[in-house]
Amino acid sequence: MNITVLGTGVVGRTLAGRLAEVGHTVWLGTRDTARAEQGLVAWLAEHPGVSFATFAEAASHGAMIVHAGNGVHAEEILAAAGEANLAGKVVIDVSNPLDFSHGFPPSLTVCNTDSLAERLQRAYPQARIVKGLNTVTAAVMVDPSLVAGPFSVFVAGDDSDARGRAAGLIAELGHTDIVDLGALTAARGLEMFLPLWLSLMQSMGSANFGVLLQRPAQSTA
Amino acid sequence: MNITVLGTGVVGRTLAGRLAEVGHTVWLGTRDTARAEQGLVAWLAEHPGVSFATFAEAASHGAMIVHAGNGVHAEEILAAAGEANLAGKVVIDVSNPLDFSHGFPPSLTVCNTDSLAERLQRAYPQARIVKGLNTVTAAVMVDPSLVAGPFSVFVAGDDSDARGRAAGLIAELGHTDIVDLGALTAARGLEMFLPLWLSLMQSMGSANFGVLLQRPAQSTA
Repeated sequence: MNITVLGTGVVGRTLAGRLAEVGHTVWLGTRDTARAEQGLVAWLAEHPGVSFATFAEAASHGAMIVHAGNGVHAEEILAAAGEANLAGKVVIDVSNPLDFSHGFPPSLTVCNTDSLAERLQRAYPQARIVKGLNTVTAAVMVDPSLVAGPFSVFVAGDDSDARGRAAGLIAELGHTDIVDLGALTAARGLEMFLPLWLSLMQSMGSANFGVLLQRPAQSTA
Repeated sequence: MNITVLGTGVVGRTLAGRLAEVGHTVWLGTRDTARAEQGLVAWLAEHPGVSFATFAEAASHGAMIVHAGNGVHAEEILAAAGEANLAGKVVIDVSNPLDFSHGFPPSLTVCNTDSLAERLQRAYPQARIVKGLNTVTAAVMVDPSLVAGPFSVFVAGDDSDARGRAAGLIAELGHTDIVDLGALTAARGLEMFLPLWLSLMQSMGSANFGVLLQRPAQSTA
């Protein structure tokens, strides 16, 4: 499948590289291909299965789109990708709207009564936005074995078929417990998990962790 | 140990009942003892080990205090308990500042750059506030076996000795994985977990669940 990954930072590269490895044709989108920095140029040379293109060109090719850019810039990135290139497609937003401009801990630029994913859905009503994978670090997104035991990841979106397709792609990365949270309002909780994620990361000194949803015990009644 | 539980709702009764069962002398605090409703009167009759008193009287007896009232009213409740009755004591805040006045899903009355627990600590600097247990439902707080597998609970607070004492009490309730998140700023993440908790509760149709922190795999390097 043609998959577009928007954003060339650590998250974008990590996902693009792994999605190419598992057999997809990957289009990695950036703002200006002429301004790729040295490290990215070297990375692209090592990943011949990943095509490098502008946000708009990359988005035009993908049957499914992953937004892996900085959450704070997500709205500009999707604007650059172009409304027509998003229409009708599953767009998985794995980003978090973290504002580090006031230092650590960062705050969320949107939360509580709204979420970044809902804002994206309102801005692009024809895109089928799914929030997912944002509760684990990039390395863990593509290699669950970095965590010592099974853990859960989550999807939320207003289109149940889109949630299923997103979950299918996530499963290809090796995830075994993909919890469907239903409507996109659940993205609030997924994004608001980040402050706890950051505290856990600090307390363990590692980002390679996850949380496993432990279900209710079977009633003995 | 003399333990004070502030708040006579489901959370307060559940904790008070179990803490008495495991051998503590429990003082259950309320605003006005003369206005106890029928259900509470019946509950108290069934729990002779729990002494019923005003917030202030209950707080005066406890060596440790649990705030189990409605998070939205936490500041009034601690004010009624009285600054002198809180000074120097470990005060475990198990509440969540959920505002249901605009329907479901509720929003948090404070979040992102502050938390209820931090507000309480600022209001009562001599109390040793610990946020904890707020990430599971009342029944699960006192009976971890309601969940099908092991799960984590968390403590955060600026006083490490207080976090240790709170964790000790929580362990008496049967919890085996009590994660120390350090300073009270981590209460933001613990309170902001609630929207995800609510989505999970909706998707499973049960509140008897938990999340297990899965640590980083041991490096093979």
